[in-house]
Amino acid sequence: MTGDPDVQTVRKLGEQQILQLLQGFCPAEVIGDDAAVLSPTPGRSLVVTSDVLVDGVHFSDRTTSPEDAGWRAVAANLSDLAAMGASPLGITVGLGLPGELPVTWVDRLYQGMTACLQPYRTSIVGGDVVRSPTITIAITAFGEVEGDRVIRRSTARVGDAIVATGEHGSSRAGLELLLHPEQETPLMAAERADLIRTHQRPIPRLDVLPLLNSLSPLPIPITGMDSSDGLADAIVQICRASGMGARVERQRIPIAPPLIAWVGPEKALEWALYGGEDFELVLCLPPETALSLVKQSGKGAAIVGTITAESQIWLVDQEGNYPDMPLTLEQGFQHFADEAIAINANSH
Amino acid sequence: MTGDPDVQTVRKLGEQQILQLLQGFCPAEVIGDDAAVLSPTPGRSLVVTSDVLVDGVHFSDRTTSPEDAGWRAVAANLSDLAAMGASPLGITVGLGLPGELPVTWVDRLYQGMTACLQPYRTSIVGGDVVRSPTITIAITAFGEVEGDRVIRRSTARVGDAIVATGEHGSSRAGLELLLHPEQETPLMAAERADLIRTHQRPIPRLDVLPLLNSLSPLPIPITGMDSSDGLADAIVQICRASGMGARVERQRIPIAPPLIAWVGPEKALEWALYGGEDFELVLCLPPETALSLVKQSGKGAAIVGTITAESQIWLVDQEGNYPDMPLTLEQGFQHFADEAIAINANSH
Repeated sequence: MTGDPDVQTVRKLGEQQILQLLQGFCPAEVIGDDAAVLSPTPGRSLVVTSDVLVDGVHFSDRTTSPEDAGWRAVAANLSDLAAMGASPLGITVGLGLPGELPVTWVDRLYQGMTACLQPYRTSIVGGDVVRSPTITIAITAFGEVEGDRVIRRSTARVGDAIVATGEHGSSRAGLELLLHPEQETPLMAAERADLIRTHQRPIPRLDVLPLLNSLSPLPIPITGMDSSDGLADAIVQICRASGMGARVERQRIPIAPPLIAWVGPEKALEWALYGGEDFELVLCLPPETALSLVKQSGKGAAIVGTITAESQIWLVDQEGNYPDMPLTLEQGFQHFADEAIAINANSH
Repeated sequence: MTGDPDVQTVRKLGEQQILQLLQGFCPAEVIGDDAAVLSPTPGRSLVVTSDVLVDGVHFSDRTTSPEDAGWRAVAANLSDLAAMGASPLGITVGLGLPGELPVTWVDRLYQGMTACLQPYRTSIVGGDVVRSPTITIAITAFGEVEGDRVIRRSTARVGDAIVATGEHGSSRAGLELLLHPEQETPLMAAERADLIRTHQRPIPRLDVLPLLNSLSPLPIPITGMDSSDGLADAIVQICRASGMGARVERQRIPIAPPLIAWVGPEKALEWALYGGEDFELVLCLPPETALSLVKQSGKGAAIVGTITAESQIWLVDQEGNYPDMPLTLEQGFQHFADEAIAINANSH
């Protein structure tokens, strides 16, 4: 926000010019009509997901550049598509913008969005720009999937291995470093940068889908979701939807070693379970398939537990250092209940 | 907004409960995963459109009940689908809600949305609910259309008749009555109610699509858009996109007679051309097809002019009462430029 008369603001530029600026980020063929037209692959199902992000709630100048806000908003939606087994077709972006916002902010937001979309050859195919007292970003992402390859939460079976496709807790740690840059840590500069990058530029795990399709033979349904609300949330949601329980092993939960060295194993585990925004996939698969997937899924991928016929989800410790305890959502987050929650944490 | 301790607010109810409440408005099969899965008709194109609506900018307690805000938000998006020739498949709704908002407000918003969707057997298939200082409604609607029946703005041809599918100016008049209820008018109670209803509960013209499909033989492309930003805007946008001019006849522009009786022909014409939010379709068709369509399109449908090879759009007067004048967007609206603009006017 600025009172500088030389700064080009949203109000000074006007809606038509803002739209023209933003259309520069869209493919030419989707511009100029009331709506965008896409051509899905015949016979595939359409997958649709939406997110709304609000300045001061989900992002803030304190921790997030406009490019990063754009990247993260897109990554969260692409992660939801990945969590359904779907390849992206396109996204729409609705923006609410205060009149005094510098136009460069909007331009940089779109740069971050298109940078995140680019590896998937996916475009912004439409949207809306309106005046609002609060910067608001509403994204809807569309994808497609073969009907029998839809990943659902409700199909976990007893004996399935629970796979996390990567490390957890790092995004929460990166946020902590951004919120308290003055804080002394034993982290090396590269480790610090890595945790911050994990928070600012999460990578949706669309790369896991072709692996899954080659490893998991039909007609076994694939079960899973993403860990945007934390690893604990993902496991609990899958167990609830499937009517199952689980045993999750503390030591198997993948956490970046520098994070444990910095905050200790207890805090690191808390962030891994409840921090959120790691945007990994949590999948339930037959053990052999799970093992093959873990080998091919990159850094940190691990089998973290097993689906059981119990009614509870237990966090267990094979090494006997900690007593077994039920895994709950208690440390989870209520978006409306706690206004004092740290900006950016658990926003999805 | 309320400080009454007995009122159930968004914050007191919490996000999970709000989501559960809203899921009551969605079909059961789309609930419980990261994204909704839909099955489009194989071979059809997907049409996607988005709108963002902001409290105090696009709606306000002063003129709009929550039910009406919901209805109008959905109607605007369905109108965009109709403007592309597409039948609706579903919508997603992203909500930003202040914690102190009564939960009944949200419930009533959804009631209005589903009431507008119901005649088209279309559902809310997903969305997001987040905390925001400003009530924000972000809707994305998707529909499907045979690839060769997409209605575009860019295909108008010399000699095409310009059809407005209904009366214009009534929505703007209804807004005026809502903003200034004390204003004395010569309107009868039923006329007054009719203008207000046109503003509060606009009907997207999806009913025109089957008529068009039966009247307009392939492979002639259908040209058009909706008049959500006013009749003048629609004609200018179509002419620009098609590289054409037009002659529009003042006397043929369909305006509700009570409106002319109330504000006079000049003001009524201004509202018809620039008022916006009438959500009719403006179509360019061969004259015979246009005539047949007008006969079947209901109250107020009319041929208002002709596409020409000129570079300008002329507002002409066959009766010779007014000099011919170029039709421009000058009286149009810049969302960011004019903060004093009446709430609700020209919001799309």
